[in-house]
Amino acid sequence: MIRRLTVVGLGLLGGSVAKAARERGLAREVVAVGRRLESLAAARSERVVDHVTTDLGEGLAGADFALLATPVATAEGLLPKVWQAAAEGAVITDVGSTKGPIVRCATALAPQRGLAFVGSHPMAGSELSGYGASRADLFDGALVIVTPTELTDPLAVKRVSEFWEALGCRVSAMDPEDHDRAVAAVSHLPHLAAYALVEAVVRLNPAFFGVAARGFKDTTRIAASDARVWREIFQSNRAALREALAAFRTSLEELERLVVEADGERLEMRLEEIRQLRSRLT
Amino acid sequence: MIRRLTVVGLGLLGGSVAKAARERGLAREVVAVGRRLESLAAARSERVVDHVTTDLGEGLAGADFALLATPVATAEGLLPKVWQAAAEGAVITDVGSTKGPIVRCATALAPQRGLAFVGSHPMAGSELSGYGASRADLFDGALVIVTPTELTDPLAVKRVSEFWEALGCRVSAMDPEDHDRAVAAVSHLPHLAAYALVEAVVRLNPAFFGVAARGFKDTTRIAASDARVWREIFQSNRAALREALAAFRTSLEELERLVVEADGERLEMRLEEIRQLRSRLT
Repeated sequence: MIRRLTVVGLGLLGGSVAKAARERGLAREVVAVGRRLESLAAARSERVVDHVTTDLGEGLAGADFALLATPVATAEGLLPKVWQAAAEGAVITDVGSTKGPIVRCATALAPQRGLAFVGSHPMAGSELSGYGASRADLFDGALVIVTPTELTDPLAVKRVSEFWEALGCRVSAMDPEDHDRAVAAVSHLPHLAAYALVEAVVRLNPAFFGVAARGFKDTTRIAASDARVWREIFQSNRAALREALAAFRTSLEELERLVVEADGERLEMRLEEIRQLRSRLT
Repeated sequence: MIRRLTVVGLGLLGGSVAKAARERGLAREVVAVGRRLESLAAARSERVVDHVTTDLGEGLAGADFALLATPVATAEGLLPKVWQAAAEGAVITDVGSTKGPIVRCATALAPQRGLAFVGSHPMAGSELSGYGASRADLFDGALVIVTPTELTDPLAVKRVSEFWEALGCRVSAMDPEDHDRAVAAVSHLPHLAAYALVEAVVRLNPAFFGVAARGFKDTTRIAASDARVWREIFQSNRAALREALAAFRTSLEELERLVVEADGERLEMRLEEIRQLRSRLT
């Protein structure tokens, strides 16, 4: 049981954690820290949270469990302040899509005070954003990757894992750098590709959108995601994203070569191999 | 009312047309021509069609309306035979995703006999394939693009348009080449990108599939499409596809440059512009 849970950033993810924690009675008290007074006021009047504030220090005072749910680079920037403001012995986690930078930042802060940071990445989301889109069931059955290092307190890892499990998630641990390379490939690259697919149509002829069917809509759905969130993710995971982009370019070039060479048999074999790989995912 | 409707190719699209035509009583008699005896036998025993045959000439004898529903290049290859076998005055259409090559082929055949070909492209489909995946409601509310040229008999265009409307579709006309450029951008390029996204993950590390969430699955759903169908589409629409790929590459490079240059403001503005364009599609 958490005594005081402080959620910093009450958007889609922070709001969903607050709602799920309240619904499941995970914390005696839930406090929200945010910049937008409307979201905070809505959460307060819906009794999703007990206290709201725009002041980070005030919000974290006495918190034994803190969740950073702002965009990734913002969370990193807040971490030194969080380290000063949180209660002694508090456990801090986050929801960021990249883990290397914030984990390194926490490692640097660790000697200052007896707090523990464990990186978390819930693999759930939506192209929608903001508190208005948050839902108590957003994390139901989702995979959460926690990213401890060899310096992380095992008790803190246990508390964070139990927190997510109590919200209905499956938890799996990964090294922060391995995590960042993996999500660059299966999440950040597809997002960048979706943005580029939409932009390519504008570049060719915006009238072409008129014949867009379900295939285009599904493939580019994630290009309707929050621009601020994705700006910070792309920049935070720059190196791994570039590695994934290079692999993607090679794959595109090879497929284009097979199309151009009119080697129908080889092209079909390659497409069939990919189809079978993709089919295993569903 | 069609006297005898012959559907050549009884897969996802041909099967769905046959089922919808039967359900809506569009033709007195429905004949299916196919290669796979299982599909034909199933359609016959379900009374979706009245006659089945693997012989194109036999299937088309006496047909006043014929629908080619094989992969695009296959349909093109069959067209000369269809031209010989169909009844005098018959109207022929297809369901292919590229229209330039088959329309040119039909234009070349036109002087031989008094038949009319009108290209059709129903913008409906599925990553599933085969007669087993066909459904009477696949075309409900779908957009069908018909691609007459200045040489096409207006009465044939009217009959083909009314055929699709009777199946529940909206019909819109486009020049065949304009159609091919548009679908290269909003359909063929996203398919090629989806195949390349799956392959890029394999290239980087297949274990990364383990953290794939909804975003990856949606973005790559169309990479589970039928390999033969897509081999023929990619090759048939090669020139327009390469033009779309070049635009896509430019978009990817520009986004990568913004990520690398760490110009967060400009990157966010660009992502927001794209987000707004994408949002208009839903």
